[in-house]
Amino acid sequence: MGTPLNVALVGTGFMGKTHALAWRNLRAVMGGAREIQLELLCDMPLAQAQATQAQFGFARATEDWQAAVADPNVDVVSITTPNHLHKEMALAAIHAGKHVWCEKPMALTLAEAQEMSKAAATQGVQTMVGYNYIHNPAFTHAQQLIKDGIIGRIVHFRGWVDEDYQADPNLAWTWRAKLADAGLGTLGDLGCHLVSMAYGLCGPVESLIADMQTVHETRPLADGTGAATVENEDTATALVRFASGVQGSLSTSRSAWGRKNRLAWEVHGTKGMLCFDQERMNELQLYVNEGPKRTQGFKTILTGPEHGPYGQFCPAPGHQLGFNDLKIIEAARFVDAIQTGTDAHPNFADALGFEKVIHAMAASARANGSRVTL
Amino acid sequence: MGTPLNVALVGTGFMGKTHALAWRNLRAVMGGAREIQLELLCDMPLAQAQATQAQFGFARATEDWQAAVADPNVDVVSITTPNHLHKEMALAAIHAGKHVWCEKPMALTLAEAQEMSKAAATQGVQTMVGYNYIHNPAFTHAQQLIKDGIIGRIVHFRGWVDEDYQADPNLAWTWRAKLADAGLGTLGDLGCHLVSMAYGLCGPVESLIADMQTVHETRPLADGTGAATVENEDTATALVRFASGVQGSLSTSRSAWGRKNRLAWEVHGTKGMLCFDQERMNELQLYVNEGPKRTQGFKTILTGPEHGPYGQFCPAPGHQLGFNDLKIIEAARFVDAIQTGTDAHPNFADALGFEKVIHAMAASARANGSRVTL
Amino acid sequence: MGTPLNVALVGTGFMGKTHALAWRNLRAVMGGAREIQLELLCDMPLAQAQATQAQFGFARATEDWQAAVADPNVDVVSITTPNHLHKEMALAAIHAGKHVWCEKPMALTLAEAQEMSKAAATQGVQTMVGYNYIHNPAFTHAQQLIKDGIIGRIVHFRGWVDEDYQADPNLAWTWRAKLADAGLGTLGDLGCHLVSMAYGLCGPVESLIADMQTVHETRPLADGTGAATVENEDTATALVRFASGVQGSLSTSRSAWGRKNRLAWEVHGTKGMLCFDQERMNELQLYVNEGPKRTQGFKTILTGPEHGPYGQFCPAPGHQLGFNDLKIIEAARFVDAIQTGTDAHPNFADALGFEKVIHAMAASARANGSRVTL
Amino acid sequence: MGTPLNVALVGTGFMGKTHALAWRNLRAVMGGAREIQLELLCDMPLAQAQATQAQFGFARATEDWQAAVADPNVDVVSITTPNHLHKEMALAAIHAGKHVWCEKPMALTLAEAQEMSKAAATQGVQTMVGYNYIHNPAFTHAQQLIKDGIIGRIVHFRGWVDEDYQADPNLAWTWRAKLADAGLGTLGDLGCHLVSMAYGLCGPVESLIADMQTVHETRPLADGTGAATVENEDTATALVRFASGVQGSLSTSRSAWGRKNRLAWEVHGTKGMLCFDQERMNELQLYVNEGPKRTQGFKTILTGPEHGPYGQFCPAPGHQLGFNDLKIIEAARFVDAIQTGTDAHPNFADALGFEKVIHAMAASARANGSRVTL
Repeated sequence: MGTPLNVALVGTGFMGKTHALAWRNLRAVMGGAREIQLELLCDMPLAQAQATQAQFGFARATEDWQAAVADPNVDVVSITTPNHLHKEMALAAIHAGKHVWCEKPMALTLAEAQEMSKAAATQGVQTMVGYNYIHNPAFTHAQQLIKDGIIGRIVHFRGWVDEDYQADPNLAWTWRAKLADAGLGTLGDLGCHLVSMAYGLCGPVESLIADMQTVHETRPLADGTGAATVENEDTATALVRFASGVQGSLSTSRSAWGRKNRLAWEVHGTKGMLCFDQERMNELQLYVNEGPKRTQGFKTILTGPEHGPYGQFCPAPGHQLGFNDLKIIEAARFVDAIQTGTDAHPNFADALGFEKVIHAMAASARANGSRVTL
Repeated sequence: MGTPLNVALVGTGFMGKTHALAWRNLRAVMGGAREIQLELLCDMPLAQAQATQAQFGFARATEDWQAAVADPNVDVVSITTPNHLHKEMALAAIHAGKHVWCEKPMALTLAEAQEMSKAAATQGVQTMVGYNYIHNPAFTHAQQLIKDGIIGRIVHFRGWVDEDYQADPNLAWTWRAKLADAGLGTLGDLGCHLVSMAYGLCGPVESLIADMQTVHETRPLADGTGAATVENEDTATALVRFASGVQGSLSTSRSAWGRKNRLAWEVHGTKGMLCFDQERMNELQLYVNEGPKRTQGFKTILTGPEHGPYGQFCPAPGHQLGFNDLKIIEAARFVDAIQTGTDAHPNFADALGFEKVIHAMAASARANGSRVTL
Repeated sequence: MGTPLNVALVGTGFMGKTHALAWRNLRAVMGGAREIQLELLCDMPLAQAQATQAQFGFARATEDWQAAVADPNVDVVSITTPNHLHKEMALAAIHAGKHVWCEKPMALTLAEAQEMSKAAATQGVQTMVGYNYIHNPAFTHAQQLIKDGIIGRIVHFRGWVDEDYQADPNLAWTWRAKLADAGLGTLGDLGCHLVSMAYGLCGPVESLIADMQTVHETRPLADGTGAATVENEDTATALVRFASGVQGSLSTSRSAWGRKNRLAWEVHGTKGMLCFDQERMNELQLYVNEGPKRTQGFKTILTGPEHGPYGQFCPAPGHQLGFNDLKIIEAARFVDAIQTGTDAHPNFADALGFEKVIHAMAASARANGSRVTL
Repeated sequence: MGTPLNVALVGTGFMGKTHALAWRNLRAVMGGAREIQLELLCDMPLAQAQATQAQFGFARATEDWQAAVADPNVDVVSITTPNHLHKEMALAAIHAGKHVWCEKPMALTLAEAQEMSKAAATQGVQTMVGYNYIHNPAFTHAQQLIKDGIIGRIVHFRGWVDEDYQADPNLAWTWRAKLADAGLGTLGDLGCHLVSMAYGLCGPVESLIADMQTVHETRPLADGTGAATVENEDTATALVRFASGVQGSLSTSRSAWGRKNRLAWEVHGTKGMLCFDQERMNELQLYVNEGPKRTQGFKTILTGPEHGPYGQFCPAPGHQLGFNDLKIIEAARFVDAIQTGTDAHPNFADALGFEKVIHAMAASARANGSRVTL
């Protein structure tokens, strides 16, 4: 790999665009970072790849992903295709010696994720999985406050991640409802994000008991010919025990009317509490048992330059980062790891750990709530 | 029983005062209701009973609770003593033919609660248990909205009830920490309130799996001679399945820093969602999937005269009821039942149902999270 | 005056009921206070007075207010009739040597209010005007925090008081719209409450410039025969200079859709800020520039036993007081003043000061915003 | 001007970086737009210009602004230097036939702004002034709702814009405190943003009365040799009358502890109300008097793809835009205007109108609050 760092992007949907913007802005926002070359954009058909190449400012376009991930002039591959394609693409890129930034979840099954993680370790490439929410300066700040002992010893955790994109009973059936194509339902789409945050705050989960439900058991076919079965879960909840002794719960629903991106949690400590909600992603709630009782209360901290890389985006507090900015921070951390040779986080091994938890939730729920140890 | 309705109050602590104020205000607030005579106040020692008699405006005072609950000039007995005394007092009052308004939880064990419920049924007296939060006009309004189908079919429920009165590790050990005196911990103090609300919104629980933890395993003795063991739970959470098919979760902590009375829940329906938090007890959050998407959002409804008996307290919306006002509504409903001969709710049988749930949570948690069917 | 303190209540509407409840609960809530005898209730016609007498628990009823306010067995008179009756009733009561608790505004004109204030001073009776919001423990706490220097020197104040009872253009014309019957519009109904809070936080206003508007210039007559003119203001705003050097603004509207009791303010100091909103009357917002910047933020303080007389209502924080509870505190302070012979606040002289401000706002607005000095 | 559109950026501070990022992302985010060439970056000294050129990805660097704004290979100039330099640079660029995107306020005095506006009109170039907040999809949505009559006829407006960057009395004196260098104080920094929003919601201001204050009359010199006078205002407030008949108020403070970017407003209509706060820039509050009273309340609308160009950034609602994203929308609108030959907004003429209002506020305040007509 030379200088600059040459990037190939596979996929140009929701997350594909965020990767393109992240690569495009990384150095402009973060400064000192190595130059990034937007080398190769891969999508199908070629005409679309070419159109997006021009829009996103890539140097070349292709519809051949196999060529793309093995292109000799590429150092890093961003994989943002539908989940069931991640494995094959990531393995090919890894075997071609590329660093891989892959969207979450890594794969449809744990076995696939394990294979990916093992390949990366064997080949010695850097990997990063798109758990973007943990790169929020508000989250990093929460971690720092915990590390500094501000809320004492952590004793309890509660987390939720809800959206409403599958709340409407009249929505047509899609591949999202099919186990073979989508794998898990809300656990795979949303739940693993929550696990990534719980891990960052409380460490690994040791065991859990869980329940889940399919709220809308069938959905109408788009062509009006009837209805098809929804094979995966709309909601899931687990009671977890972390290795640290902390207890808590994880809940997710893709059928929660009114929730657009409610990835929220509260961390209970022996001296205070921290709360967060992604729908107000620039705020952190902090309660500390200090000073006179009469002036105690939850504090709303607005993120600003005091908080991690916020200042690279804006020198004034309270002006707010957006969702796409989180991807820039994520990319910056990945590039730092590549530059310095230290491990990126969350890499494939970390993400495998997160995804074990959602699969354990599904396994426990299918076994009538029996305890599953990780 | 004649006219007016003659009341005896046993106990004058936190809840005793709320009963006294409720009896005192019932007719003044609600109008048409039968006259209430504050007949007899019972506390120990007699001097305190007499002082409180004067303050609360009762006609007579006694330190003999057995005499009080059987006093021929008494129609109704309010029992607000520590939990371990409820059973004996309630049974005595019931056997004397009195109507009984008893604070929650009914008793330390289910067996005791069952005995109380059976006695009331046998004797044919009216009973009421102090689940005051379900008398909030905001709650009644939520029930009505659900009944009217505003949020569609109910599919999921989440509830929490947290306070921080046992959050400080340095608090001295008290009877609250002892199974024999307090029975359950946070489940008995707080959890059963949440169950009463879940029941009112989603009906009875069918089965559950649960976990609980004692956050502070020992507490210092007040006399400085060492520490004693905390025998009951600081937190508890269950994944519940309601008989209706609704799934959900119930969580409680008495060690949640910053939470003062966070009895909160969200009800997910196929057309919308309802949310509530007792710390903002005059507000109800409602999201409905209707009208153009661009103007959908959670609505904050401030309670007012449109909502149940609020208008008896105040003809102007948004002026707010307080905690003590809920007890007046509760008392009014109890007196209505006595007057009309219809059953009061939640009576001993209803409350027994609530308390079965918290005991099932403890049982499941003690059995490593095994499913308990109610 | 003997023991107990004998009360007459004139008027039984919105505020009349709050006075009745306050008198009824005062001793039961506050303890040690002198016994209150609900002696005489006055309303018209007699049948209604008698019905309300029974409901509120008064000893006697009358429809003769002149007899009531001069009744030899009465020590204190509560005046809660429509505003244009306050003056005559208060003067009669004062001249009969009674202490007077009068609802706000004192009178339709400043001249009337001045006459009332002068009479009270001359006769040496205690007076109290119903500015109930300043008796909120959250407000008293804010005052204490300011006094303790927690937010430094006060430099700026902003206040708003909005409701929507006159927001609907289709509401029928009533006496509220007529200068001769109602006097000022939103300034008299709502604005003077805001002034009472501004005074309690920043002291007296020295001068102001103001503007006001009649949003709905006519209203339909209830009988469908046409429309009549609205003679007083729907909104009013002033830029004020306090004697202390603080600057600020006062705004009010009775036509603000969605606002039910939004009596809100913010006090800017050199070290921090305090904010309040009556629609969340059990919360106080506090920001202080202390500790590391990274953990600064607005704190939401929930009122509890740490805050003034809250603990008399409830020993647990966050359980919330309601609107009617504020009247109990107000009554308690009035009775304390009567008992101890110290001045009650806000008495007629204080309230005259508040009402001068709203009349000055109207005067400035009528003079195209010219500065009016108080 | 050829294809692509060639951009020169003068200044690389807070706003300079936002312009660079906006230019850099415009086409990648918005799609179809014309290609943007980051041609020339100008800062001093040259070494810094070169470093930033590399970071931001510009083709060339210079320290000669006069050469930059007249460079034959440049079509558009972004001016983001300190305010007192805007006029000279803008005039030079205009006279060289360049389109100009200039940060706000346009100039230190109205005379300068007028000269700039006139020059642009004479030369027929497109201009845009950096009133970024009005490009927020939440704001555009509010405008649309008003246009659609959702809240009826607009009758009242209140706006505030507060920060705390000058709240600390111990902050050292800087050029910001000097009239000759900074011009107005909080009015120039913050107040004009509020005016831009008020204009977008209620149209032009016709007349006003105002007051202002310098909270901290002196500030310590950085070198410890004493203190210097603060010559401009820390707070300012006006009571405004819009040409439409709407009344309202505009308030600003740069010394409001705890406020980081509180650019907030409420628009009162005859059928409802709209509220907004930039500190929660992805939310809009809407109250409409429709449907049963019992379910009326303020709705929190989270912005999403339903709202203007949000969908270009993210296809999922509630994921949130950030401050820097607003600049991309602003740039896109400017380029659209250049492409289509229609006027950009707010251009120099529009911005002159905004700035007249803040100067009128200062003029009124200096004249003891006399009415100033615009």
